[in-house]
Amino acid sequence: MMRTSIIGATGYAGADLLRLLLNHNEITLSVLTSESYAGQPISQVYPHLKGHVDIVLDNMNIDLIIDKSDVVFVALPHGHAMKVVPALLTAGKKVIDFGADYRLRDTAVFEQWYKHTHVSPDLKAVYGLPELNREQIIGAKVVANPGCYTTASILAIAPLLREGLVDPHSVIVDAKSGISGAGRGLGLGSHYPEATENVKAYNIGGHRHTPEIEQELSVAAGEPITISFTPHLMPMTRGILATCYMNLKPEVTMDQITTAFNKAYQHEFFVRLLGPGQYPATKNVRGTNHCDLGWHVDPRTNRVIVVSAIDNLVKGAAGQALQNMNIICGFPETMGLRFPALYP
Amino acid sequence: MMRTSIIGATGYAGADLLRLLLNHNEITLSVLTSESYAGQPISQVYPHLKGHVDIVLDNMNIDLIIDKSDVVFVALPHGHAMKVVPALLTAGKKVIDFGADYRLRDTAVFEQWYKHTHVSPDLKAVYGLPELNREQIIGAKVVANPGCYTTASILAIAPLLREGLVDPHSVIVDAKSGISGAGRGLGLGSHYPEATENVKAYNIGGHRHTPEIEQELSVAAGEPITISFTPHLMPMTRGILATCYMNLKPEVTMDQITTAFNKAYQHEFFVRLLGPGQYPATKNVRGTNHCDLGWHVDPRTNRVIVVSAIDNLVKGAAGQALQNMNIICGFPETMGLRFPALYP
Amino acid sequence: MMRTSIIGATGYAGADLLRLLLNHNEITLSVLTSESYAGQPISQVYPHLKGHVDIVLDNMNIDLIIDKSDVVFVALPHGHAMKVVPALLTAGKKVIDFGADYRLRDTAVFEQWYKHTHVSPDLKAVYGLPELNREQIIGAKVVANPGCYTTASILAIAPLLREGLVDPHSVIVDAKSGISGAGRGLGLGSHYPEATENVKAYNIGGHRHTPEIEQELSVAAGEPITISFTPHLMPMTRGILATCYMNLKPEVTMDQITTAFNKAYQHEFFVRLLGPGQYPATKNVRGTNHCDLGWHVDPRTNRVIVVSAIDNLVKGAAGQALQNMNIICGFPETMGLRFPALYP
Amino acid sequence: MMRTSIIGATGYAGADLLRLLLNHNEITLSVLTSESYAGQPISQVYPHLKGHVDIVLDNMNIDLIIDKSDVVFVALPHGHAMKVVPALLTAGKKVIDFGADYRLRDTAVFEQWYKHTHVSPDLKAVYGLPELNREQIIGAKVVANPGCYTTASILAIAPLLREGLVDPHSVIVDAKSGISGAGRGLGLGSHYPEATENVKAYNIGGHRHTPEIEQELSVAAGEPITISFTPHLMPMTRGILATCYMNLKPEVTMDQITTAFNKAYQHEFFVRLLGPGQYPATKNVRGTNHCDLGWHVDPRTNRVIVVSAIDNLVKGAAGQALQNMNIICGFPETMGLRFPALYP
Repeated sequence: MMRTSIIGATGYAGADLLRLLLNHNEITLSVLTSESYAGQPISQVYPHLKGHVDIVLDNMNIDLIIDKSDVVFVALPHGHAMKVVPALLTAGKKVIDFGADYRLRDTAVFEQWYKHTHVSPDLKAVYGLPELNREQIIGAKVVANPGCYTTASILAIAPLLREGLVDPHSVIVDAKSGISGAGRGLGLGSHYPEATENVKAYNIGGHRHTPEIEQELSVAAGEPITISFTPHLMPMTRGILATCYMNLKPEVTMDQITTAFNKAYQHEFFVRLLGPGQYPATKNVRGTNHCDLGWHVDPRTNRVIVVSAIDNLVKGAAGQALQNMNIICGFPETMGLRFPALYP
Repeated sequence: MMRTSIIGATGYAGADLLRLLLNHNEITLSVLTSESYAGQPISQVYPHLKGHVDIVLDNMNIDLIIDKSDVVFVALPHGHAMKVVPALLTAGKKVIDFGADYRLRDTAVFEQWYKHTHVSPDLKAVYGLPELNREQIIGAKVVANPGCYTTASILAIAPLLREGLVDPHSVIVDAKSGISGAGRGLGLGSHYPEATENVKAYNIGGHRHTPEIEQELSVAAGEPITISFTPHLMPMTRGILATCYMNLKPEVTMDQITTAFNKAYQHEFFVRLLGPGQYPATKNVRGTNHCDLGWHVDPRTNRVIVVSAIDNLVKGAAGQALQNMNIICGFPETMGLRFPALYP
Repeated sequence: MMRTSIIGATGYAGADLLRLLLNHNEITLSVLTSESYAGQPISQVYPHLKGHVDIVLDNMNIDLIIDKSDVVFVALPHGHAMKVVPALLTAGKKVIDFGADYRLRDTAVFEQWYKHTHVSPDLKAVYGLPELNREQIIGAKVVANPGCYTTASILAIAPLLREGLVDPHSVIVDAKSGISGAGRGLGLGSHYPEATENVKAYNIGGHRHTPEIEQELSVAAGEPITISFTPHLMPMTRGILATCYMNLKPEVTMDQITTAFNKAYQHEFFVRLLGPGQYPATKNVRGTNHCDLGWHVDPRTNRVIVVSAIDNLVKGAAGQALQNMNIICGFPETMGLRFPALYP
Repeated sequence: MMRTSIIGATGYAGADLLRLLLNHNEITLSVLTSESYAGQPISQVYPHLKGHVDIVLDNMNIDLIIDKSDVVFVALPHGHAMKVVPALLTAGKKVIDFGADYRLRDTAVFEQWYKHTHVSPDLKAVYGLPELNREQIIGAKVVANPGCYTTASILAIAPLLREGLVDPHSVIVDAKSGISGAGRGLGLGSHYPEATENVKAYNIGGHRHTPEIEQELSVAAGEPITISFTPHLMPMTRGILATCYMNLKPEVTMDQITTAFNKAYQHEFFVRLLGPGQYPATKNVRGTNHCDLGWHVDPRTNRVIVVSAIDNLVKGAAGQALQNMNIICGFPETMGLRFPALYP
């Protein structure tokens, strides 16, 4: 049995990872840390876990974690993982980092968007989007788990760029996220009376997932590209819907688009390709590691619109992390993740 | 492997049972019937099931079902199960009925509340509330799965009546249900713009779960009792919260109440007893087979208030049905049901 | 034109009062204070007010307020009004206090439930529930505006106690409130991902509106009574539904109950009596000063169940305050309050 | 007093118009028709109106309506207004039509998108978007009230096209609507358990508001244009947020964009221009006739993103209809519409 620990277990992503790990046959739970709740059983912080995980939360103690873990999930705010990941790697642990610290290959880009000096710029992680980078993940020591918006966007767009079907400089992503994306930390934007029955855009042109999407799409396009990315807040808890607009290259047909998606994903369990005229809905993937994709070619405007739906806490965080763990540990990739959404 | 079929698979309870059965190691899915959608794959009716269950729905064909099933779940509106259950039993199948047809031991009471003549009054089912009736369920051929309000209410009240701690004629249940309790059938009360940001009572003094609660609580009390039962509709999808009021018998203390609950449920995996000053929340049991219980003794009014939370589609329907299946088939009782809530 | 000021204008009750005052023909807005946002226009704190009220918020300056106001609304947390109300009265201002400081006639009861020493125990306010106390309010200098749960509960119960139709020692109130009742201050209980799709009870047997309900119902009953009061949190923003249970006195009929309500409220614009079998829904009163009432006599249990619905921020706070202002200023009582709910 | 009637008063737009008309000083309510509920008081169909409008609903009787009305609002499904509007005009009534029948100036375009033969193609209405077409509306006999998506989109985009600041062939509108946009008619997409906690796109490339947006934007651009328009369904009742993407023409600056919006709307009461970095939220306009606008110029991609928020039932239907009535009747344009949102 693989011993797994979570640094930062009491955020929503950490808690959802616990739900998934409980359903996994090849692991045991070891150390769970929390800055705010150390000393309490996690089931006191999250009463829904009572009877399932009653482990007492620890302060961050890197030696203890190294001593008791084979795999370590790091679920900390950006700028914090870089302080602990090097030691974990030195000790030979496998690491999956939920945060942004190791996602951007160019340290200058990280420092520009995050306004934060990087303290371990030489440590290079594999970007953990299995449907694109599976081969590199297999042997990885440290995996940078992609952001939620990023996962939804890249899966929708990369196949079309790779096949050269769309103008790489025309990409627009209009993304809609549930409120859990903002975490468990309190804020007026997540205050129920303000957030319910409300839809708004935020951070237009400046969201930190933008350079991450651009990095991976530039690889797919074979040239550096910039995109327009607009995040919106939805009155719901879980889910991201990304509506992606691209100009078609001349003469490109619906069939070619469909072929590109089939080529990319026909053997992928977690990506579900919906038929013509069918579009994803966030509720159909709620609680799961699925990414549902639908698309429409509009001859009036010569554009293709691709819609993608994920659960931001699962395929956008904890589920993808577990998928990455399965890959680097040699378990079946869908272990612990093979279930449908909680519906309705 | 036990072959399981569902008659009426496209209601919410049937669909949720599918989610649970997919997570069960000892069964295979066999026939799924639907009156409205026969001929379509269930994953077309419920796209969240795509890639998990793509079985094509059948019309009701009792011979086919008998031929292909060991266990049959019947999820039909009241008055319909009684037309198929006798044949299933004759053929030696194990039957778990989600509906009301076999819940009330007194046929006259059934006919009075449901305004429906019973066509198989001699067929007696076991009332499938395992925490109260486990012994009878073990050998049962047909289990009448309790109603959702009923489960939440009985689990909260029966221990106190059984121990004689409260006045059996003082029981008031104020129950709050999510909208999925009204099913997938369309109605103005479930229309989103009408139902959201809205709370209301309905069917005061006349809800059909009342005689069912009274039947089981009368057993616990050792005498016939009537109760006040008021259902309310909440702007949420899943969950029932039952707030139960009872007058204490003279000199009864908080300790005695706590002891009664411990005695009843300390070995029950699905019932979770919360500590003093802690009260259940429906979200903590969402998607699970748990029933969370909290209570308060109020010396000012000499009453005890017990609060109980379940997921109406799980412990109130599909989960309890699976728990009953596990019991009658000799599987571990928690098989397929041992996971925490989807939270948040 | 009457000059009106609000001390504590940036809470939800204060902001909703602004909405109502904008619709009133006989007043002008004068000073608006805020501890947290002084110096900013209120339309920056509440962008929905842009173009309607752009007044810059002031710090609390009692001399300024006295100088510029005829009527002062005080919307402060308990314990704070008692520091400013005496000075306002000395200066001859009319005062309507939203908080609890002057609601309880017995200072000892206040100090017991609020754990707070009262600094102006001799100042006696009129309890501002116009449908019960209109005559006393007319000449009042200071009105203690009732709590939200209180208003919903008393209006539902008082007529039956006054007419001697129910056992005064059997009163149980099961109340359901929207989340705005907890205010704009941040807390985990109001955090969207925790609050949505969730129903729970809280503070059972200990909510501070309990003594206030008991005080007024004791007057109606003609003897001191205690009640069971259980508040619940609903996944919605606005609204309170109070479901009230009482044992009928012998031989009391549905007709007598109906007569009692007609007698009490037939000339009240804001109280709407629903017909037999009709029950209130919070959405029907949203944004308005209405209290909708429905009732059911249950011969099986010999109880009457009365259901009452209000908007907690309007009839439960700002609207009732304006109604009280209209009364003490001699304006038509419904001025500024004569509009139906925002529906759906 | 102007006598006003509503044909089709029991849809959401009709009911919301009643709320607004009750707040208007210069009109009386006359005939209200309903196909489904004729013979019932409207307050039985919509209990929130009890005590405010208790008028009994009539069947459609054109002679009665002509006899009793000066202004007639027609709120019928498309294809139905064209059967009654000509008679109303012949009788000299002023007509405001909520539907699509008279919005498209080119009958062929109407018939292509609506698959419906037009029976009064020669009757030409004025397109009732006052902020663009006020002068033509003043003398109009019949006003075609714009669609909800249309209003939000055109107000956001037209000023930039008119000033030649953006590429007219680059317009993309990603629109998000509350569920009331689908009306009070029942459907699985509006069923609470399906709609809540769910976001999805629908009708991509094929929504009927597309030609209407294109018609008005082509006027603004001075040349025929096509746009990409993608509607999405949000888990909320009221509100539309339209996020509009356009490529900037060379050298265009943020200042020029801001100047264009100021030029277009600085004297418009209902259009509120938010400052830099501020974006609209649907909740800030809920229940009102406001359209809030915010924008961002992104130098990285050389695009401008404009975000617009309205209440689909008010500025997108009933409120704009009343604004049009005020204009054609010579009342102050904001009469009955001068109030802020219900917040929170």
